[in-house]
Amino acid sequence: MDIGAELYGLIDRLYPFHRSITGDGVRQTLKVLQEFVPLQINEVSSGTEVFDWVVPDEWNVREAYIANSDGERVVDFDDSNLHLVHYSVPVHRTMGLAELGKHLYTLPDHPDWIPYRTSYHDKSWGFCMSHNQYLGLRNEEYEVVVDSSLQPGSLTYGEYCIKGESPDEVLVSTHVCHPSLCNDNLSGIAVSTLLARQLTKQKPRYSYRFLFVPGTIGSITWLALNKDRIQNIKHGLVLGLLGDSGKFNYKKSRRGNTEMDRLVCRHLYENNIDHGIIDFYPYGYDERQFCSPGIDLPVGRLTRTPHGEYPEYHTSADNLGLVAPDRLAESYELVSAILARLESAEKYLNLKPMCEPQLGRRGLYKKVGGESDAKDYQMALLWVLNLSDGSCSLEDITERSGLDKAVLETAANDLLQTDLLRKL
Amino acid sequence: MDIGAELYGLIDRLYPFHRSITGDGVRQTLKVLQEFVPLQINEVSSGTEVFDWVVPDEWNVREAYIANSDGERVVDFDDSNLHLVHYSVPVHRTMGLAELGKHLYTLPDHPDWIPYRTSYHDKSWGFCMSHNQYLGLRNEEYEVVVDSSLQPGSLTYGEYCIKGESPDEVLVSTHVCHPSLCNDNLSGIAVSTLLARQLTKQKPRYSYRFLFVPGTIGSITWLALNKDRIQNIKHGLVLGLLGDSGKFNYKKSRRGNTEMDRLVCRHLYENNIDHGIIDFYPYGYDERQFCSPGIDLPVGRLTRTPHGEYPEYHTSADNLGLVAPDRLAESYELVSAILARLESAEKYLNLKPMCEPQLGRRGLYKKVGGESDAKDYQMALLWVLNLSDGSCSLEDITERSGLDKAVLETAANDLLQTDLLRKL
Amino acid sequence: MDIGAELYGLIDRLYPFHRSITGDGVRQTLKVLQEFVPLQINEVSSGTEVFDWVVPDEWNVREAYIANSDGERVVDFDDSNLHLVHYSVPVHRTMGLAELGKHLYTLPDHPDWIPYRTSYHDKSWGFCMSHNQYLGLRNEEYEVVVDSSLQPGSLTYGEYCIKGESPDEVLVSTHVCHPSLCNDNLSGIAVSTLLARQLTKQKPRYSYRFLFVPGTIGSITWLALNKDRIQNIKHGLVLGLLGDSGKFNYKKSRRGNTEMDRLVCRHLYENNIDHGIIDFYPYGYDERQFCSPGIDLPVGRLTRTPHGEYPEYHTSADNLGLVAPDRLAESYELVSAILARLESAEKYLNLKPMCEPQLGRRGLYKKVGGESDAKDYQMALLWVLNLSDGSCSLEDITERSGLDKAVLETAANDLLQTDLLRKL
Repeated sequence: MDIGAELYGLIDRLYPFHRSITGDGVRQTLKVLQEFVPLQINEVSSGTEVFDWVVPDEWNVREAYIANSDGERVVDFDDSNLHLVHYSVPVHRTMGLAELGKHLYTLPDHPDWIPYRTSYHDKSWGFCMSHNQYLGLRNEEYEVVVDSSLQPGSLTYGEYCIKGESPDEVLVSTHVCHPSLCNDNLSGIAVSTLLARQLTKQKPRYSYRFLFVPGTIGSITWLALNKDRIQNIKHGLVLGLLGDSGKFNYKKSRRGNTEMDRLVCRHLYENNIDHGIIDFYPYGYDERQFCSPGIDLPVGRLTRTPHGEYPEYHTSADNLGLVAPDRLAESYELVSAILARLESAEKYLNLKPMCEPQLGRRGLYKKVGGESDAKDYQMALLWVLNLSDGSCSLEDITERSGLDKAVLETAANDLLQTDLLRKL
Repeated sequence: MDIGAELYGLIDRLYPFHRSITGDGVRQTLKVLQEFVPLQINEVSSGTEVFDWVVPDEWNVREAYIANSDGERVVDFDDSNLHLVHYSVPVHRTMGLAELGKHLYTLPDHPDWIPYRTSYHDKSWGFCMSHNQYLGLRNEEYEVVVDSSLQPGSLTYGEYCIKGESPDEVLVSTHVCHPSLCNDNLSGIAVSTLLARQLTKQKPRYSYRFLFVPGTIGSITWLALNKDRIQNIKHGLVLGLLGDSGKFNYKKSRRGNTEMDRLVCRHLYENNIDHGIIDFYPYGYDERQFCSPGIDLPVGRLTRTPHGEYPEYHTSADNLGLVAPDRLAESYELVSAILARLESAEKYLNLKPMCEPQLGRRGLYKKVGGESDAKDYQMALLWVLNLSDGSCSLEDITERSGLDKAVLETAANDLLQTDLLRKL
Repeated sequence: MDIGAELYGLIDRLYPFHRSITGDGVRQTLKVLQEFVPLQINEVSSGTEVFDWVVPDEWNVREAYIANSDGERVVDFDDSNLHLVHYSVPVHRTMGLAELGKHLYTLPDHPDWIPYRTSYHDKSWGFCMSHNQYLGLRNEEYEVVVDSSLQPGSLTYGEYCIKGESPDEVLVSTHVCHPSLCNDNLSGIAVSTLLARQLTKQKPRYSYRFLFVPGTIGSITWLALNKDRIQNIKHGLVLGLLGDSGKFNYKKSRRGNTEMDRLVCRHLYENNIDHGIIDFYPYGYDERQFCSPGIDLPVGRLTRTPHGEYPEYHTSADNLGLVAPDRLAESYELVSAILARLESAEKYLNLKPMCEPQLGRRGLYKKVGGESDAKDYQMALLWVLNLSDGSCSLEDITERSGLDKAVLETAANDLLQTDLLRKL
């Protein structure tokens, strides 16, 4: 199957599940992902202290609806899991429209769309509906049922680690807490999962850690419980919003000039990919946590249109029609190319740094000296040797030398066959 | 009384006194300033070694004049204290015009102005007079009287310290050694004094140290006798030349990029105040001492037209007509605004730097999440927390975030009410 | 004799010798140079290990020619030492044109010129000739004679050290391995030699080390045998290609911002000398070795037209007609000026850095203060004192102060007479 169709198919399959920051929807989702990669599903008990936060009670919903005086369900969670404000507490009451109205959320500017709302930290309840449906509500008594449970349980997240040649890790993190919304963030889940599957087939240089975490509390929980692993993370990407029709946007890490930051900017530019570069700001997805001042990891973020900048964001219109196989495939290929570039963005160490080594006796130098034309390949050998003092990657050597990266790679590979160079 | 009138009135009152680097004129001046602030008047004995210098003998003048053969006083110190070269040694002799001429200083280009001259380090005497008066001197015998005393005494300077919340000090220094000259530097004395009075009414964050010192030897003396206090000085300004009609000129410290340097440049620019910025050079006023290589304090200098760049500089034309109440008031307000800005240029420390803290349970987060519009205030909370790692001031956060400083201040103040932030 | 004529005369005299990376031609050359400076001639035995290299066998040529069937020598090493590929192994055989042709090197684009070719690391032989001569060869049997010896002996290089006031060394290196070629590099040899003679007459501040070494293997040998001397080298220049009509080209050191780099750039710019500046790249002359990553010395390279960029490069047309006395003299004067500038590029230390020292009592201050015009000299005194904190050279002070270097030098020299300043 082509990768676009496969990504879209996975989104289509996960679309109905009722994900939130805790609960069975996340578990169902991660179980499906286990068909692709041997994901570890972790459960962290409610009440666990994680830095400034506490893992919340687990929220599950059996049933939720509003029925009119005729007993007709005018709003039903079974029709769309967006109808219920996340973390709504149980309620079973009858009330007039005036009181009910205080618990209803609509989008007057997009009267056919249902908004997505959460209320994690406030013991309340609410329903979301289209504005047109709201306008059709009669002034009568309604039966309101939220048969939810909000009680000690656990927060669920997925983690998958691919052991590479090096203990140095690349973190790929995506959020899994959104219900039936496709671009935000089934697109990120699908791309991450199939990337992880692809990397499993390789023996990568770096180790890779894929996180499928509920936004904010999930990444905070992981960081708090893995403090001693944080130092291994040398590069990272937060992925999301990868299926819409917008151009790519890379948001730099807080440090602003990490190897990933430079690499992604170079890659987008060199490949004439229409894109935007966004300086770090302390809002957005889980880069907020990875780039908090006490963590400060070299983690950037790749999306297409950023959150909040397309009208369907956080509404029922972020559905299967908003994402498309070809765009998902393009996103997958881009991240794949970025990681491949990172894999090949080698650093070398010249093992004979005192003067030039003798290339001739290693078969690396043209036989008859004295010709005027210095060939690129021979310059590449010299550049790689000269700058491989531990501070420069091959990309850095490419920039300084002005040579094509390909010829520098060839030169480096040839030098690796000798006693002159080793990988760092 | 309005501040301009008050500043001008103080200059008017101090104008007649015969100030020099030592002597009763300085004492008289400082005593007047004590009416405004409880200035400490310090006396440092002649002969005290201060770094490479020695506190000089004290110089006072009872009488000084040149009388013609008719007994008429053609030049009299009582008419203008500029007539006598400073530190002139006593003399009482009769001499012809030829010999006398070698001791006379005039300004041929400004024939009505009396120059101001000093000869601190050379045991000599001299008179200054207008060129027109000089041209009218008859070729005859003159009685020359300098009834001065130059003998062990003390150097006098004023010091006023306002204890702030922090032991970190802001130094404001101005020179008090010029006789009847208004812009240079009664303007500096007046502005400093009334600023000190104003700050006394506040409880400032920083401690403030106001110095009223004779130029060069005064600042050297203070530095030599207060070596252990130098390290407390975190910011500083030398003030002078604040009453003329020229635009403002800020001279940067030797370091060139201190918080004061950046703050003053920002302030002048943002407020559309016509101004010049001058890179540090090792000449001028007491910034020469504060910015000598072994001291190297973060002290800049604020003037209007710099010394030597207006024709009336160091002449009798630097009189009460050269300075004006409105311009003095404008200078006072500018320095006042700069210091207010420095006071509010807070640095904070995020006390929960591991991931984002939970703003919701501290009442700092909107109740229902998921809305598209990030409000400036909420972004401000995140920016302040993210960048308050000890390296960034609120002004730095303002620059990097692109938010209005006001909203960042509000955010910081709200965060200070919680356990999340403290002042540095 | 004027310097141009003398330089040209030395080139003329050295032109016929058969130099290579080893052998008697180098010895002959260095012996001539000993008439100018007491050069030490060092011999390093074949087989000596020098970093990644081994000193090669010594190569000498008694006779080499190609004779046609009539016994006529159509190519004879005695006519031009370019005719023989360097390091050709002995051969004495008869062969047809077809076989012979594989050993012949010509320049079809410049049919009258003989190319210069080497084959140091490959046991082969070959002849170089003009393309026109080659086209005239009859299809017949030829007697080929290379009566060379390639056997253990030594590598010869010249070294001349001038002891200066300081143990800090300036390295001047030039290659001596090229046969009858004038610009590359008899021009470098001549300029280096007469510069060394000139410096001998002075008592320079720095120590100077002149190296006359075969390219690549010679500098590698010197570095390998003098590892403990490398740290003394504080500045350096590789010289070559100094007689052609092109503009000057300075190639920066690997570090890219050394004092020599800045100094040469300043000098060329300030004196309106047409020139190019080349960023370091790891090819060229012996700067390749001096700037290898494990050596990384502050050594730049000065040439006129760089190697390979003029058509006569490495051909018989790089002859006495390509170099000219006036251009050699100009090159000599430029290097001489650069070294003079380096000599005078002093660093000082202010010995009284706490506040300004009292210039008056040291006779360094104008007697009557208070004049408006700050004289350059007095500003220079202040600048030198203010910036001489160990980090700034006088050239740096010149740049920051905007004053003429001459007045700063005068000021520094005057200050050196006092207790205020000492040389670093």
